[in-house]
Amino acid sequence: MASPTTEKANILLIGGGGVGTIVALNIETGGLGAVTSVLRSNFNVVNQQGYTIHSVDHGEVPSWKPTKGVLGSVPDVTKESLPPFDYVITTTKNCPDVPPTLPELIAPAVTPGHTVIVMIQNGVNIERPMFEKFPKNIVLSGVSMIGSHERGTGVIVHDDPDILYLGAFRNPNFTDSKPEVAAAHAFIKLYGAAGKTNVQFSDDVQWARWRKIIFNGVLNPICAITNLDSSRVRLADSLVEGLVRPAMTEVFEVASKLGYQLPEDIIDTMINLDPMDMYLEPSMLCDFRKGNLMEVEILVGEPLREAEKVGVPTPNLKVIYELCKAIQWRTKETKGLITVPPKRGA
Amino acid sequence: MASPTTEKANILLIGGGGVGTIVALNIETGGLGAVTSVLRSNFNVVNQQGYTIHSVDHGEVPSWKPTKGVLGSVPDVTKESLPPFDYVITTTKNCPDVPPTLPELIAPAVTPGHTVIVMIQNGVNIERPMFEKFPKNIVLSGVSMIGSHERGTGVIVHDDPDILYLGAFRNPNFTDSKPEVAAAHAFIKLYGAAGKTNVQFSDDVQWARWRKIIFNGVLNPICAITNLDSSRVRLADSLVEGLVRPAMTEVFEVASKLGYQLPEDIIDTMINLDPMDMYLEPSMLCDFRKGNLMEVEILVGEPLREAEKVGVPTPNLKVIYELCKAIQWRTKETKGLITVPPKRGA
Repeated sequence: MASPTTEKANILLIGGGGVGTIVALNIETGGLGAVTSVLRSNFNVVNQQGYTIHSVDHGEVPSWKPTKGVLGSVPDVTKESLPPFDYVITTTKNCPDVPPTLPELIAPAVTPGHTVIVMIQNGVNIERPMFEKFPKNIVLSGVSMIGSHERGTGVIVHDDPDILYLGAFRNPNFTDSKPEVAAAHAFIKLYGAAGKTNVQFSDDVQWARWRKIIFNGVLNPICAITNLDSSRVRLADSLVEGLVRPAMTEVFEVASKLGYQLPEDIIDTMINLDPMDMYLEPSMLCDFRKGNLMEVEILVGEPLREAEKVGVPTPNLKVIYELCKAIQWRTKETKGLITVPPKRGA
Repeated sequence: MASPTTEKANILLIGGGGVGTIVALNIETGGLGAVTSVLRSNFNVVNQQGYTIHSVDHGEVPSWKPTKGVLGSVPDVTKESLPPFDYVITTTKNCPDVPPTLPELIAPAVTPGHTVIVMIQNGVNIERPMFEKFPKNIVLSGVSMIGSHERGTGVIVHDDPDILYLGAFRNPNFTDSKPEVAAAHAFIKLYGAAGKTNVQFSDDVQWARWRKIIFNGVLNPICAITNLDSSRVRLADSLVEGLVRPAMTEVFEVASKLGYQLPEDIIDTMINLDPMDMYLEPSMLCDFRKGNLMEVEILVGEPLREAEKVGVPTPNLKVIYELCKAIQWRTKETKGLITVPPKRGA
């Protein structure tokens, strides 16, 4: 469990991009936690110069680093005889189709039965591999509504306020959920201590995740496949009525069958979520345009596998999934993760 | 009807790219037809310098032009008091979703009841708008297996021999099909006179077209949507078994329901049509990569509309179609054919 608040909580953050950096800044500003951030692509720049942050919640913050600094890889608390982390927060992209998986990645920093894992990430069923790997740990769920992006290396533009719905995943190995709920409230206290962010307790984290997957499992991949932003998708020929709405209806029915009753108007809400004149790029389109891997499995694959389990037909979602996997395959080839046989005469 | 062969047939060719240029060269080499070619993007270059042709059937042919020259637009035989064309051959891309439609385009050159229209183009139902516009004309069907591309402006690389299956579409306004069949044979004589090409009479042009649409209605658009060539589609994750084969099976069933019984092994034949080590780009992928419009409607839209008419469920083909239309919409926007409302603050 997390340490009592008389001393600062010892926190490891994995993923210091647009979302993770503001998470770290929130916590440090509140004074109840001390953060170490594990970075990848921006490690050298941030290690030397710190972050440059332009934040709608925190203002202009130059040359900023978390108090316990940044690391280029996940520390091994046992081998390095480090004090245990009270929290490991994950804010990275989550692509279980590319090793290492997230549980493998964070394992050296997780103390069994002690570290609270906080997943501030999209998707459904993301907690399952965590509980498999860490059966005795509490895992919290963060569904973030923040708008924050790394515009240049180490330069964070946070232009839409941080709103975080935080609750506890149910660890199937625990009979009592009270410690999980208490851990969620403890983290909320720590996260909201600066008073600069809107963090709310979520008592049904799965409901919140299935609500968001209506957008992220359908409109998000369709934007990536068609290379259209979320406004152009609404303008493009018959795409909304011919594909977006039918596929969203499939996901809605999967959620219903699983017991998550979403509002009747959720599909229209999600189709029109982004302001029309903003021409926003959802995350998968962003990744696609940057040539990055997309979160195909946790956003599209998992809803589809749930559909198959509960017997809801999802012909549209199936095609979206196959096409996303093919595009992901191409990205893997470009990144050298896959090689193909040589071309004739080459 | 075409003129007797004592004088050369007067032929207008619309579309002087990879396929059209070899069609013109075949005819001119045989000596039974005199060709005028209507060009668009390569008009200036070809008009000044002629074509440079590297042909597997004809060898190296420098500075070549059809005997009656090239034009930058379709001539109006009535207004310009020209002799009627015996044949108008169409070898352009066929995108009825972008005006002018093909019948509108060629109308000024077509003499009702005289000109034989020869459509050497892919797709199904392409003859229907022709018969609507020209109810008294014969329309022939050419299904070409040629490999020939314009590699630079006016530079034609013809690397796979010309094989043409030629037959007559059935004009629903004619009770007797004999003149249509005779016209097909007359054109074959003219087309094959040089002895350098393989032109065969096709007695069921619809069957041949539905056979080819198994590839062109499914694998071709999937290559474009995923940006993968026809070999990588076979390598990419579960794409063949998860999408290509199910969608091809849908088209196979539409063809069956329409009375075109294709061979049992046609789907495997079409999946494996291109040699694996060639990494070939089907036409829609080619167009996609060049930023050109794709033949969405005649390759994907028409099979889908036929499916709806005869009541064959085609959930996979439907999604492929919607995505193609969305990509086509984006190309239209890029080409300035569509404009979107301004972005906030722009």
